[in-house]
Amino acid sequence: MSILDMLAIPEQIEAEGGYVIATYYLETAARSEIIQKVSAIAVEQTTGTWIPVPEETPEVRERHVAKVVGVYEVPGHEFEVPSSCDTRQFVFQLAFPAVNFGPQIPMLLSTVIGNISMSGKLKLLDLKFPKEFLDGFKGPKFGVPGVRRLLGVESRPLLNNMIKPCTGYPPEVGAKLFAQAVRGGVDIVKDDELIADPPFCPMVDRVKLYMEAARQIYEETGHKVLYTVNVTDRADKVRDNAHRAIDAGVNALMINYLTVGISAMQGLAEDPDINVPILAHLDFAGTMYESPISGMSSHLVLGKLARLAGADVVVYPSPYGKFPFLKERYLQIGHHLLSKWQHLQPVFPMPGGGVMPNVVPAIINDFGNDCILGAGGAIHGHPMGPVAGGKAMRQAIDAVINGVSLKAAAEQYPELKAAVDAWGLMDEDEKSLFEIKQ
Amino acid sequence: MSILDMLAIPEQIEAEGGYVIATYYLETAARSEIIQKVSAIAVEQTTGTWIPVPEETPEVRERHVAKVVGVYEVPGHEFEVPSSCDTRQFVFQLAFPAVNFGPQIPMLLSTVIGNISMSGKLKLLDLKFPKEFLDGFKGPKFGVPGVRRLLGVESRPLLNNMIKPCTGYPPEVGAKLFAQAVRGGVDIVKDDELIADPPFCPMVDRVKLYMEAARQIYEETGHKVLYTVNVTDRADKVRDNAHRAIDAGVNALMINYLTVGISAMQGLAEDPDINVPILAHLDFAGTMYESPISGMSSHLVLGKLARLAGADVVVYPSPYGKFPFLKERYLQIGHHLLSKWQHLQPVFPMPGGGVMPNVVPAIINDFGNDCILGAGGAIHGHPMGPVAGGKAMRQAIDAVINGVSLKAAAEQYPELKAAVDAWGLMDEDEKSLFEIKQ
Repeated sequence: MSILDMLAIPEQIEAEGGYVIATYYLETAARSEIIQKVSAIAVEQTTGTWIPVPEETPEVRERHVAKVVGVYEVPGHEFEVPSSCDTRQFVFQLAFPAVNFGPQIPMLLSTVIGNISMSGKLKLLDLKFPKEFLDGFKGPKFGVPGVRRLLGVESRPLLNNMIKPCTGYPPEVGAKLFAQAVRGGVDIVKDDELIADPPFCPMVDRVKLYMEAARQIYEETGHKVLYTVNVTDRADKVRDNAHRAIDAGVNALMINYLTVGISAMQGLAEDPDINVPILAHLDFAGTMYESPISGMSSHLVLGKLARLAGADVVVYPSPYGKFPFLKERYLQIGHHLLSKWQHLQPVFPMPGGGVMPNVVPAIINDFGNDCILGAGGAIHGHPMGPVAGGKAMRQAIDAVINGVSLKAAAEQYPELKAAVDAWGLMDEDEKSLFEIKQ
Repeated sequence: MSILDMLAIPEQIEAEGGYVIATYYLETAARSEIIQKVSAIAVEQTTGTWIPVPEETPEVRERHVAKVVGVYEVPGHEFEVPSSCDTRQFVFQLAFPAVNFGPQIPMLLSTVIGNISMSGKLKLLDLKFPKEFLDGFKGPKFGVPGVRRLLGVESRPLLNNMIKPCTGYPPEVGAKLFAQAVRGGVDIVKDDELIADPPFCPMVDRVKLYMEAARQIYEETGHKVLYTVNVTDRADKVRDNAHRAIDAGVNALMINYLTVGISAMQGLAEDPDINVPILAHLDFAGTMYESPISGMSSHLVLGKLARLAGADVVVYPSPYGKFPFLKERYLQIGHHLLSKWQHLQPVFPMPGGGVMPNVVPAIINDFGNDCILGAGGAIHGHPMGPVAGGKAMRQAIDAVINGVSLKAAAEQYPELKAAVDAWGLMDEDEKSLFEIKQ
């Protein structure tokens, strides 16, 4: 098979169907043979190895080898490479026959970013799936419409609270914090990712106490809440944890899906006996996306793959808070979660990490109403206490959807005013962003 | 709690027990307050958030916050930082109370490299576990002695073959390649990581045909072989795949443990009904270790965590082959797999990726006899065919353990001679390495 035989025209690949298109960044020595290098990667990740072997027949290659569908230099030299150039940078695309791995995430990842994750300066930038691959995934069981239906909230942005402290408290203290947050108007309370089922705060005890508090508040006020309990554990124990929590009365789940494995979340989402929404927590994602020259893009880890695996809500970094995170990445992830994508329901983006009332206008401006504001410290660390903390966040949301500036709303609501007074000056960038929006 | 209260003396932490010690690399702006920054990380990954909250009491902090046990600048400034310094580099250590996450890998990772994986230029370099944490893991069920017992090979280095082509062949072709490799003297045949249970080569069909071939060869020759079938799949299907494969007669398993999730492998290893060894495949590891300023060290991903999770064999990059990989990393991983480590049995290191006869002396020199040579293309792409390819590798192994140079042995064995003739000049570095060893 000649090198030219390894190349294919994108329209041809599209017409044949059944290929996953992977887009990569690659940095190489200025004098390396790029087409040869990219072809070698295509072979290495499908049928071949460093040497021809007898059973890698033309028929095997024809059906199963990856094809090179594009190699683009950035910026592009057409005549000669200046001698001052030590390295050259490329974006290239490979088309992998989906039949090689079938509709499952682990074998997909082993193929598109398995051994080549160790092959020098290469990053997986994007994946595009054929219909027959996507048809193998049920996707989110609830998604945006399902979560809204459960909460009875038609169109307003939702408010989530992470209980703080993150860990170290007994169930009774957690229940008190839970009830305070809910009385403040929170729609979803989630465990922190740092608590699961420790001896000092057993999962089932938390569920029972929190759900009892939820029931009481609902009877008093009619306000509904989802509690996403953290079922993170050894992969083969996650399902059992979920069932124990559901038996104890919980109405939603949470999983640190990247430390357990993305497909463990899919196992929960596609379990016909699990009829509650799932919140996917981002921790560990940086190990895979932080490097610009290895790993894979954040919008794959936190966007497409999470949606494929059935997350109903994805928590990920807000660019206005405590994580260093490009706004464009945060928007890309939101785009991959919310946009129309075959039969896969839209997923709530939930920016978190230092979310407080003054960033609410920016986030709603970015996503529209289909987003969840994820506030931890802004609620439990509010100067007037957690109930006021919840109220201040809800007041900020209501102000934005009613077209009222936060400044004006703060004049009306003491809880919002206390938050703006306390944190308005916390970060000049956030403040100026807020000022511009208003 | 003052910043000084966050600091602890290592001996004191050791004496109290129950802490996991995590070592990190951190690069910061030259003028940042390092002790404050490290303390903030310690709080963020245990009890706290960006603001004090009411229930983060002194008692909660005392029991559950991480302690700072060391901050070391590299190189170390003692008087003032030169104005030419834009950034400073540190190695620091935190002690995390193991009670926060218990003896499980997902919550451990969420704690030690969860949200902080997204916090700038920070890499997890090492983890040291207290006895009570390690006691929660059974570790390898077979390990080096168990695998040797199954094969009846007391002390020689073992030979593994990856079937090539990687994928795209029907079970009958796989069975032919399997039989050829085994007749060449291979001890363990593994699937390539790119094949699992595709429609064109169903897992159970492979198992039946391969194991029948193994039985025939054993009856003819007395030579035993393990076949590690790839059970990689959605996390909740892995156990079922393993049981189906075992029911079909397989005598070993393989899993792409990093794309499924490390703890999914532990689920297999600690399943009392699974009584066959497990081979852990490295693909995807580079997404986590490639960056020098994010993610975590390769010896954690491929060494300590794999052993904790019960791998009996770990395939990982050879520094003499097709992957760019530092020799020191390869040695460190081997060290973590083989050294005495409480009750956890030693694990076979299996360097792979371009392993051929001429690197056998180097690898055995590095590890001694307790290693597995992982050869794919060198067997199936051997000029005289796969049986000769297996023989050439076994001849190289025998030469080394008998103190005979490969050059001399090649005079005696045509299969080895053909391999040395074909590949001896393939890579000048490898060749010179080989020449030096001889």
